[in-house]
Amino acid sequence: MTRPDFSNENLIYSAAFSCYSIAYKCSMRGVRMKPRISVITLGVRDLNRSLAFYRDGMGLPTEGITGTEFEDGAVVFFNMNKDFILALYPKAALAKDGKVSAGPSSSAEFSIGHNVGSKQEVDALMKQAEQAGAKITDPAHDRFWGGYSGYFQDPDGHLWEVAWAPQWQVPE
Amino acid sequence: MTRPDFSNENLIYSAAFSCYSIAYKCSMRGVRMKPRISVITLGVRDLNRSLAFYRDGMGLPTEGITGTEFEDGAVVFFNMNKDFILALYPKAALAKDGKVSAGPSSSAEFSIGHNVGSKQEVDALMKQAEQAGAKITDPAHDRFWGGYSGYFQDPDGHLWEVAWAPQWQVPE
Repeated sequence: MTRPDFSNENLIYSAAFSCYSIAYKCSMRGVRMKPRISVITLGVRDLNRSLAFYRDGMGLPTEGITGTEFEDGAVVFFNMNKDFILALYPKAALAKDGKVSAGPSSSAEFSIGHNVGSKQEVDALMKQAEQAGAKITDPAHDRFWGGYSGYFQDPDGHLWEVAWAPQWQVPE
Repeated sequence: MTRPDFSNENLIYSAAFSCYSIAYKCSMRGVRMKPRISVITLGVRDLNRSLAFYRDGMGLPTEGITGTEFEDGAVVFFNMNKDFILALYPKAALAKDGKVSAGPSSSAEFSIGHNVGSKQEVDALMKQAEQAGAKITDPAHDRFWGGYSGYFQDPDGHLWEVAWAPQWQVPE
């Protein structure tokens, strides 16, 4: 038994059997999802209210509501990390677009983590969120994993965790 | 009435009144959230099942379940975009951590957008998701905004949109 020859990149990156890392065990046949997320879209009940919260309350820059020329097109985009967008979209329109039931709200489906460089920054941002109308569900405190964080909910109950993690280098 | 003097950067970037862009109307006093998301944490009912779906089914590289030395610490991390992580965390633990009610599931709270470079790539990834056990809620088709996309739900009903957008440059 000889080791496979990985010197031929075509072997590794072939469409039928591709791996991002030789170190990762390759057992899958098929198409791999690239490890990349382009957009997080939050379903909201009131687009103007959510725009006000994130833009005026939290200070995220945006061009405001766009796409109003289309039925169910009204949307708000925030450019976040490079090649990554946070979008606000009416919940009913999201349900219609994805062909899922809107259903009752649920707050433990997901959380969005926003890491900052110090405990003081966590405290300042939690205070800002509260002033912007967020509901503080868990005030910032030391966590079992060695960091310091707090949770708040946006006007639709979407959960954010503002965190300082000692081992996590925050980009400027 | 004279225009404010923005030649002094300290004025613009002072703690009490900071703006990321002079072009953005600065009306807020307080601390601004930096336009950055560090983590998206998905609340899941069965960590092993979700790990299998994302790692083995969709091909996302990960070191698997970590943090099991802590109570409610078991978590799965996927390194996605630079400085950005997708995490899987038991829903009950997320609700406990954020001090929110777990409640019933809801599928229109948010969607995760994964953009690719062509319609063919959308089709291939939708097929892969179906083979991995995802529920296709809306097969890929042309969209009113000029792109082409489809929606699927992961094992917990979390909604993903796989999209090709003609005006959107996808990084390699």
